[in-house]
Amino acid sequence: MVSETVEAQGHLVDSGNFQSILTTIVEHGSEYEILRFDMGRKNAEGSYLTLRLTSDTTARLDDLLAKLSVFGCYVEGTPEVLLRAADMDGAVPEDFYSTTNHRTSVFINGAWVLADHQRMDAVLVAHAGRVACRKLRDVRQGDQVVCGMQGIRVVPDVQQRDKPSFGFMSNEVSSERRVETVVARVADMMRQTKAGGGRIAFVAGPVVVHTGGSQYFCELISMGYVDALLSGNALAVHDIEVALSGTSLGIDLSSGHPVEHGHRNHMRAINVIRRAGGIGAAVTSGVLTTGIMHACHTHKVPYFLAGSIRDDGPLPETMMDLIEAQDAYGKALANVDVVVMLSSMLHSIGVGNMLPSWVKVICVDINPAVVTKLSDRGSMQTVGVVTDVGLFLHQLAERLRP
Amino acid sequence: MVSETVEAQGHLVDSGNFQSILTTIVEHGSEYEILRFDMGRKNAEGSYLTLRLTSDTTARLDDLLAKLSVFGCYVEGTPEVLLRAADMDGAVPEDFYSTTNHRTSVFINGAWVLADHQRMDAVLVAHAGRVACRKLRDVRQGDQVVCGMQGIRVVPDVQQRDKPSFGFMSNEVSSERRVETVVARVADMMRQTKAGGGRIAFVAGPVVVHTGGSQYFCELISMGYVDALLSGNALAVHDIEVALSGTSLGIDLSSGHPVEHGHRNHMRAINVIRRAGGIGAAVTSGVLTTGIMHACHTHKVPYFLAGSIRDDGPLPETMMDLIEAQDAYGKALANVDVVVMLSSMLHSIGVGNMLPSWVKVICVDINPAVVTKLSDRGSMQTVGVVTDVGLFLHQLAERLRP
Amino acid sequence: MVSETVEAQGHLVDSGNFQSILTTIVEHGSEYEILRFDMGRKNAEGSYLTLRLTSDTTARLDDLLAKLSVFGCYVEGTPEVLLRAADMDGAVPEDFYSTTNHRTSVFINGAWVLADHQRMDAVLVAHAGRVACRKLRDVRQGDQVVCGMQGIRVVPDVQQRDKPSFGFMSNEVSSERRVETVVARVADMMRQTKAGGGRIAFVAGPVVVHTGGSQYFCELISMGYVDALLSGNALAVHDIEVALSGTSLGIDLSSGHPVEHGHRNHMRAINVIRRAGGIGAAVTSGVLTTGIMHACHTHKVPYFLAGSIRDDGPLPETMMDLIEAQDAYGKALANVDVVVMLSSMLHSIGVGNMLPSWVKVICVDINPAVVTKLSDRGSMQTVGVVTDVGLFLHQLAERLRP
Amino acid sequence: MVSETVEAQGHLVDSGNFQSILTTIVEHGSEYEILRFDMGRKNAEGSYLTLRLTSDTTARLDDLLAKLSVFGCYVEGTPEVLLRAADMDGAVPEDFYSTTNHRTSVFINGAWVLADHQRMDAVLVAHAGRVACRKLRDVRQGDQVVCGMQGIRVVPDVQQRDKPSFGFMSNEVSSERRVETVVARVADMMRQTKAGGGRIAFVAGPVVVHTGGSQYFCELISMGYVDALLSGNALAVHDIEVALSGTSLGIDLSSGHPVEHGHRNHMRAINVIRRAGGIGAAVTSGVLTTGIMHACHTHKVPYFLAGSIRDDGPLPETMMDLIEAQDAYGKALANVDVVVMLSSMLHSIGVGNMLPSWVKVICVDINPAVVTKLSDRGSMQTVGVVTDVGLFLHQLAERLRP
Repeated sequence: MVSETVEAQGHLVDSGNFQSILTTIVEHGSEYEILRFDMGRKNAEGSYLTLRLTSDTTARLDDLLAKLSVFGCYVEGTPEVLLRAADMDGAVPEDFYSTTNHRTSVFINGAWVLADHQRMDAVLVAHAGRVACRKLRDVRQGDQVVCGMQGIRVVPDVQQRDKPSFGFMSNEVSSERRVETVVARVADMMRQTKAGGGRIAFVAGPVVVHTGGSQYFCELISMGYVDALLSGNALAVHDIEVALSGTSLGIDLSSGHPVEHGHRNHMRAINVIRRAGGIGAAVTSGVLTTGIMHACHTHKVPYFLAGSIRDDGPLPETMMDLIEAQDAYGKALANVDVVVMLSSMLHSIGVGNMLPSWVKVICVDINPAVVTKLSDRGSMQTVGVVTDVGLFLHQLAERLRP
Repeated sequence: MVSETVEAQGHLVDSGNFQSILTTIVEHGSEYEILRFDMGRKNAEGSYLTLRLTSDTTARLDDLLAKLSVFGCYVEGTPEVLLRAADMDGAVPEDFYSTTNHRTSVFINGAWVLADHQRMDAVLVAHAGRVACRKLRDVRQGDQVVCGMQGIRVVPDVQQRDKPSFGFMSNEVSSERRVETVVARVADMMRQTKAGGGRIAFVAGPVVVHTGGSQYFCELISMGYVDALLSGNALAVHDIEVALSGTSLGIDLSSGHPVEHGHRNHMRAINVIRRAGGIGAAVTSGVLTTGIMHACHTHKVPYFLAGSIRDDGPLPETMMDLIEAQDAYGKALANVDVVVMLSSMLHSIGVGNMLPSWVKVICVDINPAVVTKLSDRGSMQTVGVVTDVGLFLHQLAERLRP
Repeated sequence: MVSETVEAQGHLVDSGNFQSILTTIVEHGSEYEILRFDMGRKNAEGSYLTLRLTSDTTARLDDLLAKLSVFGCYVEGTPEVLLRAADMDGAVPEDFYSTTNHRTSVFINGAWVLADHQRMDAVLVAHAGRVACRKLRDVRQGDQVVCGMQGIRVVPDVQQRDKPSFGFMSNEVSSERRVETVVARVADMMRQTKAGGGRIAFVAGPVVVHTGGSQYFCELISMGYVDALLSGNALAVHDIEVALSGTSLGIDLSSGHPVEHGHRNHMRAINVIRRAGGIGAAVTSGVLTTGIMHACHTHKVPYFLAGSIRDDGPLPETMMDLIEAQDAYGKALANVDVVVMLSSMLHSIGVGNMLPSWVKVICVDINPAVVTKLSDRGSMQTVGVVTDVGLFLHQLAERLRP
Repeated sequence: MVSETVEAQGHLVDSGNFQSILTTIVEHGSEYEILRFDMGRKNAEGSYLTLRLTSDTTARLDDLLAKLSVFGCYVEGTPEVLLRAADMDGAVPEDFYSTTNHRTSVFINGAWVLADHQRMDAVLVAHAGRVACRKLRDVRQGDQVVCGMQGIRVVPDVQQRDKPSFGFMSNEVSSERRVETVVARVADMMRQTKAGGGRIAFVAGPVVVHTGGSQYFCELISMGYVDALLSGNALAVHDIEVALSGTSLGIDLSSGHPVEHGHRNHMRAINVIRRAGGIGAAVTSGVLTTGIMHACHTHKVPYFLAGSIRDDGPLPETMMDLIEAQDAYGKALANVDVVVMLSSMLHSIGVGNMLPSWVKVICVDINPAVVTKLSDRGSMQTVGVVTDVGLFLHQLAERLRP
């Protein structure tokens, strides 16, 4: 039997982490003894916990330490972190530490150092007294990679119960909610974010166009609420198809009538933009005069179109090299405070993977399974809204008008 | 081998009935020969078809005749309909004719007579030169029941291609539609219906309350667009819970915060109404002063609450005897021109069963499977809208304001 | 400012109740001071909590006490419960105590008395030293009704982390699960339940028939795993339609081909049973020889068919009086240990309302929204399975075969 | 007013094309006159139609001709097709002909020539007496591109009513179906396809792994029913995670227990494969010994992993360049007869875009909206099955075992 002592502190009870810690140990088949538990007597006071863990093997104990790490438990004392040099490009030693999206500190050279570029599913690389998250494929031979579980401390975000400015809805995903209440809160948060100099990114799928949300989304752009648009080829093509021919995948948006053989307009839109030399060139030359892509150009909102296997064309601006696209998305998301995801599961999952846990996420989709899937990933950072995206944007634009 | 000659006429090609007739015969394993097919050369002209059918047995041929009947085929000539006396209460001879929801005529006493009270899944009973749909349970011993397939002619409704005032959407059910376009059409249709002296019934579930649609629905009531409300115990209880305590099943509608132990408000609302002697009495005595049920009373809109196995209470007005409830629904639906179904699958299916095919139905639900299920039943009479019901009502009320 | 001291004990941390208690107080806008918190140092030991609560008014404090009650908090000491006589039939004093589905004790005549017939949304009536849950409509003038929050103690069920024999799945509802694993556990539980002399009830909708689950469900009946069947008119009609004509709502189950005009078979099935005098009479007379209803009769499994507004016919056995149906369901559920709900939201919600929290519930539906809705109600008592019901029954029958 | 005469022939009535032609003309606002309509008197005989169309402008008439083309209408006589040279790389003249997925012939040099590589959303390029579909981006300056609507004839596939070997289900997408019936038919079709020397491709998402379908899918591979696997990074990673650690995204597949911090296993699996030099190398070196990817290697089934914006890693075999991935998919699909799509909307849409209309498609997903979306694209070529993918594969493997 091997043992280790771990500590945790902060809002352990009301965050649910205390419960999660104990449950994890028992389900893991290990034992615990509470050496110390000081509970804040009042709401404002934090708690303090020291636990002694016992497992049957060192490997099992390490596994348990990793599991408890996400709830804020760290090995007692301040043992120096374990660094190993990568022995090849694009891969790491087998006992590497795999990151979460929570704030993480590493004890290195006798001090706790906060990791840069926090994101999940990365490794930590130390260099010149600092430590940063890095994707596996970006690791180079000789990089100093954080391994094991010692000297690593994760600080999970805690929903503040008495200041539910963001966590204004329960986690429950349901279509049986009053969306107007949610819209009012989201609008307040967006207004406050911009007032404080913050940045808001939108992830949007073509459903924004199909459901008639384009004009309202353009309004958000013109009012300055969109700092970056992350999307794919399809949104841009459908938007441009509407701008050029008034249909979106064969539906006449103003009448709702299906327009048979509508794919023709779709392909014609792509051809027109390819002939013009790209979206930007088409705006400049006066070929493209309305719609979301036009608004992005006019209002200098950067947009990033990631390719996918289903793309037609593609448009010249679409990045069909996904290494390039992931890097571009990553840079666009640096320093964002809020991300609004509108009906695009693929791009939203991609974005969710890149975000640290303190960025606020609003996820809107009419399919509850999509909202549940996206909300699962970011626990308490995501507010899911099951509703019609076109009508949601209508309400949101109305709320944000001066 | 036995044969029979059938005829059909009207817009056979553009209705799709011509295709359906031929496909049905082949899938049935029978044979056909086209004796005559006169196709209108222009859009305004109807077509005329005479077919000779051949099956291996009389039973098989009768089965085929029944299947073709719904597409407008009737046995050539004018053979008198077959009537048999019911030999017991609440049941009919085994070869009874089972009705569809299409206009049906019966050749009786040498003339075609249009059936009264047309609805599906009924039997036809002849009396004093007239014929009417009757529910199985309402048949009495000695009633003259239409049997077999002779002398029966169904006239299916045909969507008029060049006047798509109602069939403004394709049959396809999708959440990827611009709902504002649909709302505009529905609003136009409702306005025209009322201008022409027509009647509009609403079927509504408690989701109308949960999604914040109540105030907009009350607006529709006060503007005179609701001639009858068909619902259940739950809508009324949730509506009254909001009126009395501001929550709906434990959600504070103005803040969106979940209110734990919210069922208490639910039960309290029921108790208050039971103490008052009913919804009507509670309005009169000033206990109930806002909400949908209050609006119904104030604006003299009749409402019909059908009980269900899941009901709490129930409220005094809820009909827990479903024979009574079905009869009340049926009477409420006599002479309606339009039915709007809002997020209530159970009551909507019940209502759909009672309607003739020429009543226009709008079915709104955020779950595409519900919309598909309801649209399936009434073929081209139903327009399905997959969207958020609260936001739909918001848009609809805005459109209908003078 | 008014204060009250409450206590709670048991597995407070790992049940999550400790967290829920503190969060509830803060969200309620009240204050707390922890007077005592003894935490079990090891897994097997319970905890003990004493809290002092402070609110601004007595009404607010009472509201808070009610909210905390469901997490096991009770007013310190042993104050006698407050009883008030009902002043009318079918309703109670306004400050009545509204029950949850958890085990509840009342301090009466100087002793804690466990309530009988525990269910949610009822009132507690004291009589002759005992106390029992009673539906509002069954209260009679003069009944002694429990009011306020004093002398009432709720003991919430606690999921045992180290014996996850039932709570074998997380609460998360997802279609992305391996159903075979779940089936194996459900089969084990059913076998153990029957081995221990327990009772298993099934709630089933017509989807069991449509998806081809009938033969496997009949197998469960013949193996003795079905102690009661709670359903509606539709299941029985579709089952009988298949037995008599091989179709279910117009789908030929053996070929999968749609059978147009299939409603005819539906109505013919109803007519045949009505002519026979009911399902039981049809089995006895040899008219009905296969299917679920036949198996119930042959194996003496009691069944209860509750009517609904959408019912055709109905069959003679269908209870169209819902007061009668709810009472029959309630009696059928007395002393059941396990309930398996198969694709019937309406009847499942009805049954869920009647069950105490310690009855284990398995809810199977292909629609995740239905499973989520049903699981929400019974917290940790329900295991939700998102899958195809026909294939689920196939797997379950295979697992249970000797 | 301008006019043109068009012809069509074949099973015009029972295919529904006759109805579609007339409806399209009327909705388009143009006029028609039927110059000739010869209807086959019996099932086996085709029909013949000649129509005179009249529109107000030449542009409108051309638009109508394009719309009618997909239903088999072609301009009367044999006018030579119009070819224009592409004036730049990657784009075409604005009046280019946009392809459908139906068999298409072009009248060139005095003869009808069948287009090669038929697919939708492409252009037609003529070269050396032949004509072929080409993606917009693959067009090179100087290529002879088919423009306008003259000399182009589309032959829509017609569902054969009396040989419903494939179209064994109606188009209706529903979860209320007996899946065992469908599985039996799919198994028959797969067996016949292989017996006839045909090829079957599978498109599969990670849900195959999550739902426990892997072992059954491996069985299909070992029995020789999988000629190619088209998927993405995620399926391979989850499959390998299970092979290496027994979990899939943190769910222990054998127990169903969630394994917290499960992403670690996910990242470890990727790292192991990257260290080994790829999936193939990992199989060869004995690192990877079970699972789908292992089975593909062992049985020499080619697989194609297309990258996406959400990918972790990626695995070395994943194509992150989507131009490369689309070309690889395209080549893999040449000469396939059947495609089975399992729970992967993204890759399935991509594949659907590449297929000619005569390849049979089975689309399996538990979400009806996904099945509807995929079925919409390929009209009568797709059979949609709403069910649990893991259980579907279980049934399918059982049916196909010798």
